[in-house]
Amino acid sequence: MEAANGFSNGGSTQGKPIKCKAAVAWGPGEPLVMEEVEVAPPAPMEVRVKVLFTSICHTDLSFWKGENERQRKFPRILGHEAAGVIESVGEGVKDLAPGDHVVPIFTGECGTCAYCESSKTNLCGTYRVNPFKSTMVSDNGTRFSVVDRSSGAPQPVYHFLNTSTFAEYTVLDSACAVKINPQAPLEKMCLLSCGISTGVGAAWNTANVSKESTVAVFGLGAVGLAVAEGARIRGAARIIGVDINPDKFTKGKEMGVTDFIESKACGKPVHELIRDMTGGGVDCSFECTGIVDVLREAFLSTHDGWGLTVALGIHPTPRMLPLHPMELFDGRRITGCVFGDFKGKSQLPLLVDQCINGEVKINFDGFITHEMPFSEINEAFRLLEEGKSLRCVLRL
Amino acid sequence: MEAANGFSNGGSTQGKPIKCKAAVAWGPGEPLVMEEVEVAPPAPMEVRVKVLFTSICHTDLSFWKGENERQRKFPRILGHEAAGVIESVGEGVKDLAPGDHVVPIFTGECGTCAYCESSKTNLCGTYRVNPFKSTMVSDNGTRFSVVDRSSGAPQPVYHFLNTSTFAEYTVLDSACAVKINPQAPLEKMCLLSCGISTGVGAAWNTANVSKESTVAVFGLGAVGLAVAEGARIRGAARIIGVDINPDKFTKGKEMGVTDFIESKACGKPVHELIRDMTGGGVDCSFECTGIVDVLREAFLSTHDGWGLTVALGIHPTPRMLPLHPMELFDGRRITGCVFGDFKGKSQLPLLVDQCINGEVKINFDGFITHEMPFSEINEAFRLLEEGKSLRCVLRL
Repeated sequence: MEAANGFSNGGSTQGKPIKCKAAVAWGPGEPLVMEEVEVAPPAPMEVRVKVLFTSICHTDLSFWKGENERQRKFPRILGHEAAGVIESVGEGVKDLAPGDHVVPIFTGECGTCAYCESSKTNLCGTYRVNPFKSTMVSDNGTRFSVVDRSSGAPQPVYHFLNTSTFAEYTVLDSACAVKINPQAPLEKMCLLSCGISTGVGAAWNTANVSKESTVAVFGLGAVGLAVAEGARIRGAARIIGVDINPDKFTKGKEMGVTDFIESKACGKPVHELIRDMTGGGVDCSFECTGIVDVLREAFLSTHDGWGLTVALGIHPTPRMLPLHPMELFDGRRITGCVFGDFKGKSQLPLLVDQCINGEVKINFDGFITHEMPFSEINEAFRLLEEGKSLRCVLRL
Repeated sequence: MEAANGFSNGGSTQGKPIKCKAAVAWGPGEPLVMEEVEVAPPAPMEVRVKVLFTSICHTDLSFWKGENERQRKFPRILGHEAAGVIESVGEGVKDLAPGDHVVPIFTGECGTCAYCESSKTNLCGTYRVNPFKSTMVSDNGTRFSVVDRSSGAPQPVYHFLNTSTFAEYTVLDSACAVKINPQAPLEKMCLLSCGISTGVGAAWNTANVSKESTVAVFGLGAVGLAVAEGARIRGAARIIGVDINPDKFTKGKEMGVTDFIESKACGKPVHELIRDMTGGGVDCSFECTGIVDVLREAFLSTHDGWGLTVALGIHPTPRMLPLHPMELFDGRRITGCVFGDFKGKSQLPLLVDQCINGEVKINFDGFITHEMPFSEINEAFRLLEEGKSLRCVLRL
């Protein structure tokens, strides 16, 4: 392994800064610029990772655009879906070593806090996802710098979602790096960093979809299709896909969606149609669009008495939940879900093993609609923004 | 039993109308009038019950006042907390017989619909609680009539909450009458019709409070104290009572509340204080006031990652839930709860047996602050309205 990846415990770069390429976001909506950045060695309890594959998720897009004022922190290295190899580890890191294959996770797992010790949550007290955080936890500093073109002085480049994977090398808290079986193909495992784990986990861990379950998925992007995939693997009786774009159904069918509703052309509120189709509503619905009114439709489309709505979409809106308190008495429930309620470091390695040995058959290939070299990242952004790709995997 | 209660299978009233006293509500906020009403025999699958004890709950108060336009259906016989004895049964009733001791339930259990067959809900498809329903399910008719003073003709009197217990005799769907052990003291069992079952069940069934749990109860009326009682019985580590009225803490202490917050005098948002007191928030909170802003405080007072808020209060407001969709990602959940998630006919008889044999020690006496003859019902309404009683049990 070590030779193949070009790393060993005594590698020549260990303890030294590495100069490499990174796609730097300089301002909201501005094309990313491929810069030479310097990546500092990992501080204690951190690891430095050679990123081999990265893909783009809507959260990258939203932060790149700076849709929320508070999100605007530039220059910044975005990216949070990736897979790579540990180059070196900082002091105190015991569970990872150079050469290990890893998947970064944007919501970490320290393993020792009250949250990590609870079986009821995957939110870590220290490393939980925080899109407004732009530095490392240990010293509030950055590990990236770039030479300022006018002054010639090094300027810090900010981090993103604990991961910053749009770089040939990145530094992660060791709590945010999951060691996986080296036999797993990294270009696919990259999707476990966010999209697939989030959707599949929402179906498995959050909603506990089972053989008899009826399911509705609102928004058939990568996360929505991953929910459908998770439901399909659990043998769900019916998986209803809802989207404004009827083209999405072709892909949806491939991924296990059994029925399709074109939400703007179905002639009545979607929840009424779903109730008609299912004798009162689905057992669980999943909101993957980030649109508040869709969240209400998703809520109302479940069966009263026991329906569960899982909110997955990011809602950068001032609007509150459009639910009346009395509606809670109909027995419909609603819950959020981060990273599919997977505890990343504890649970993903087993999932990877199960994917390798065929026990779990996730259709990774179905999600990868495009592959490109890292240098074409702006084109990959465009494809996602225009709804033309599910996942474009970039090779570094 | 039969002789003692004056009933037998061949009782002289069976199949005939009964004339008796009932406290009739003629208009919103008008004092109830003790009228002679005629109570029709039970139709198929109905039972006629001689009410021996009834008490008053805030829902009676709210419907008496006509706080919501749609609630105004007069003349009406209110009342839903009671206990009594079956006088006669309609055709097809197999599980109840004259002489049986029963507790009426406002949310019935037919036992055969998809909801009753599901272990996930106690809402019955046919007999679930519906405050706007004012007639019997089988024929949309009433079983009560009163002679109109001007015309001398009989006028229908409407039903309330499947129960209408402010009458010496009432007719219930058999799905809404729970047969209990005749050894149980009916003047106490009466409280299982609503308040105690709702609160205790919210702690046991909805929130599954356990020995380590920390709990906050917002609103220390009868339902809030029943939640505290349920949490106490489960051995909860800490039960924080929140109320605007510090006098409520005296009673609260008796009923197991360990800490008290006077919400308008504590100097900061209640949820902040609760987080300070508990190292991040309670495991579960219970909203028993029906005030939307209190519901938000209750939500925020739970621990992120695993906190559960149970909404019990009735919210007759146009305002929606004051929660932002992104707040769902903090891992706090919210759910409603009707009748403590008890399936009335399946589960209450065992609870009554456990109360009799001492296995479950619910402090019924703690809730009964007043006892009066039925004729003083208007005085009992006044005591509840002024916050001077928890439960006033009326003897018929």
